[in-house]
Amino acid sequence: MSATHAPAGNNEAMVLRRDEGPVAILTLNRPAARNSLSRAMLAALQAALDGVGAEDAIRCVVITAEGPAFSAGHDMKEITARRTDPDAGRAFFEATMAECAGVMQAVVTLPQPVVAAVEGVATAAGCQLAASCDLLVAAEGAKFCTPGVDIGLFCTTPGVALARAVPRKAAMEMLLLGEMIPAAEAHRMGLVNRVVPSGQALPEALALAQRIAARSAVALRLGKRGFNAQAALPLAEAYAAAGTVMVENLLAEDAAEGIGAFLGKRTPEWRHR
Amino acid sequence: MSATHAPAGNNEAMVLRRDEGPVAILTLNRPAARNSLSRAMLAALQAALDGVGAEDAIRCVVITAEGPAFSAGHDMKEITARRTDPDAGRAFFEATMAECAGVMQAVVTLPQPVVAAVEGVATAAGCQLAASCDLLVAAEGAKFCTPGVDIGLFCTTPGVALARAVPRKAAMEMLLLGEMIPAAEAHRMGLVNRVVPSGQALPEALALAQRIAARSAVALRLGKRGFNAQAALPLAEAYAAAGTVMVENLLAEDAAEGIGAFLGKRTPEWRHR
Amino acid sequence: MSATHAPAGNNEAMVLRRDEGPVAILTLNRPAARNSLSRAMLAALQAALDGVGAEDAIRCVVITAEGPAFSAGHDMKEITARRTDPDAGRAFFEATMAECAGVMQAVVTLPQPVVAAVEGVATAAGCQLAASCDLLVAAEGAKFCTPGVDIGLFCTTPGVALARAVPRKAAMEMLLLGEMIPAAEAHRMGLVNRVVPSGQALPEALALAQRIAARSAVALRLGKRGFNAQAALPLAEAYAAAGTVMVENLLAEDAAEGIGAFLGKRTPEWRHR
Repeated sequence: MSATHAPAGNNEAMVLRRDEGPVAILTLNRPAARNSLSRAMLAALQAALDGVGAEDAIRCVVITAEGPAFSAGHDMKEITARRTDPDAGRAFFEATMAECAGVMQAVVTLPQPVVAAVEGVATAAGCQLAASCDLLVAAEGAKFCTPGVDIGLFCTTPGVALARAVPRKAAMEMLLLGEMIPAAEAHRMGLVNRVVPSGQALPEALALAQRIAARSAVALRLGKRGFNAQAALPLAEAYAAAGTVMVENLLAEDAAEGIGAFLGKRTPEWRHR
Repeated sequence: MSATHAPAGNNEAMVLRRDEGPVAILTLNRPAARNSLSRAMLAALQAALDGVGAEDAIRCVVITAEGPAFSAGHDMKEITARRTDPDAGRAFFEATMAECAGVMQAVVTLPQPVVAAVEGVATAAGCQLAASCDLLVAAEGAKFCTPGVDIGLFCTTPGVALARAVPRKAAMEMLLLGEMIPAAEAHRMGLVNRVVPSGQALPEALALAQRIAARSAVALRLGKRGFNAQAALPLAEAYAAAGTVMVENLLAEDAAEGIGAFLGKRTPEWRHR
Repeated sequence: MSATHAPAGNNEAMVLRRDEGPVAILTLNRPAARNSLSRAMLAALQAALDGVGAEDAIRCVVITAEGPAFSAGHDMKEITARRTDPDAGRAFFEATMAECAGVMQAVVTLPQPVVAAVEGVATAAGCQLAASCDLLVAAEGAKFCTPGVDIGLFCTTPGVALARAVPRKAAMEMLLLGEMIPAAEAHRMGLVNRVVPSGQALPEALALAQRIAARSAVALRLGKRGFNAQAALPLAEAYAAAGTVMVENLLAEDAAEGIGAFLGKRTPEWRHR
């Protein structure tokens, strides 16, 4: 079962959406431009995320890409074209950065877990998008790179996502050297959850997403939000916040059902909402 | 040399305490219930921690467990029984979460270092307890798991301990998938310090504890507290806080003795307090 | 091309500086004292860092050491000598800690990236210095150690740097046990970026530094400062801060040149400032 929702007014949608039951698969679909995050692509991605975020029937989201590049990051042609604006592009750059930060935070704050499926190269803001997902499945040939230093533009915003995913020195190495990091090394760093054979990134991400989606929606929603809320707090505050979430979760119908099923050695039936 | 302190009024103490010289070994002793963290178990653990925390003669603590499970986490039968309370269990759940968070923070704030010895499976709040210890020794067959998603109850509070022990994506993978993580993989993630052959978790933890306990008590106490205080602060504040601790430590008798012994190439004799 | 700047009034400078083009190499040069961080050494290091930090022509810094020890940490003879002060050394200890924290933070806040080249043993505050650098290259035989517990002086301030470089339990293991950590294990923990054959730590660090130094100075300066600024902030604030840096970077001449060169498939020519 699948459905494709293409944004209106596009012959070829920037971001394709296909649902497999409770899993929404968002596919960056500008392969000829290496899925660069142009303003139009960011808007399409934001719209797609807003869409799935509002749908209770969607329990997990996969983000993947068409073509050999997962995403090459910002669209440098688009950026360069605005240097002739009266403000030398400042307003355009500010809007681009705000939109990009919005998309990345939308991934983090989306009610549903998000799994990245990276088959090719994820560069700069493309690496940031993959790093911002809750889980990341990479094919053996996938590569991760923040090469802004090579073009005089340090990958400072990708560094926000990297600093929260990998150890400090690993992040600095990626940012200062701009080298291609193979999937296996990215796994060692903690950026990648699973490395799979070539061609298997999407199937494996989808399999994980279906397993996640089979769980109680209320537990997943409370849990993802609760995790991110507590992670940034001092320990005592983190426990206070997390404890409140646990009580709310315990009082939810699905916890009663799930715990009851566990004690009764039967399969739980989640309430569909 | 060993002593067993059983809480009064229990034929079979929930938490056994045995001292080997300056090391207190706390053993979760409800193997038939997979050492689940019932209210009674949490109270016994809190009392045991309060006890050792107040004893200057104890220099290091080991937490281990009787039976095949280190701990299965909260007691689901106890929780389910309170759903018929007039408030559907809310007050009981709140008290349980508060007590559990209290125990976990007591491990972190205990004056003495705490070493977990995990031989079997550490699940949910049981995984949280192991993750909350300063060091974690695991047998090859040990497993770590936060499977709350399987019963409609996301492991949000265990996530507090996990988020502070392993990289973000590793924590999310454990929490979203609920899979059993073998000791070797937990070591790779940073959750486990040492993986030892089956049956050796407690002996190895005890050996580490004895080595730690042979050091200056004042250095260990200032050091553990100082580490946790600075870790949550911005860099400049962290250095200010840590510097104050260093000066206090330098002015302590044991530092004079230890540094003197180092310079004189002799063995230090710590003041026994 | 190289130049040596020795601080005035020293027959044998504590810290040697040699420049290879845009890279300044600072060498701890008190090998007979295992490059211990005496007050004089800290002052020399601070002066050297202040010097290179003010020079726009320097694009990257390498910190290395003469002799078998990278640095043994604080000078215990100097510390012990002040115990007979009327205040038992308190004022001296406070000043030492303040100066040491100043040097470590100067490494972190230096406009240029800093690469540590560790060939031998980096102990206590010597380990802290290596851990404070942006990147760390270690020879196979290099070792890292925070053995303060052995002398009654917990390595609390080195713990500030360790807690920000490696997972929590790895830092606690180093601090509580005080064991020598081989380079390969330090790499696994995230403390070391590259392990190279014996004798190759400095050449490899220098090669990395030259690659970094070939990049746009403005991008490196904005990037390093921006990374550290955002890393300590909550996510939304981090993105706001990083976005501001990106816009400033995009409006800099070097980004226009670098992006233009990228689009034109030519080599960029950075403005020399």
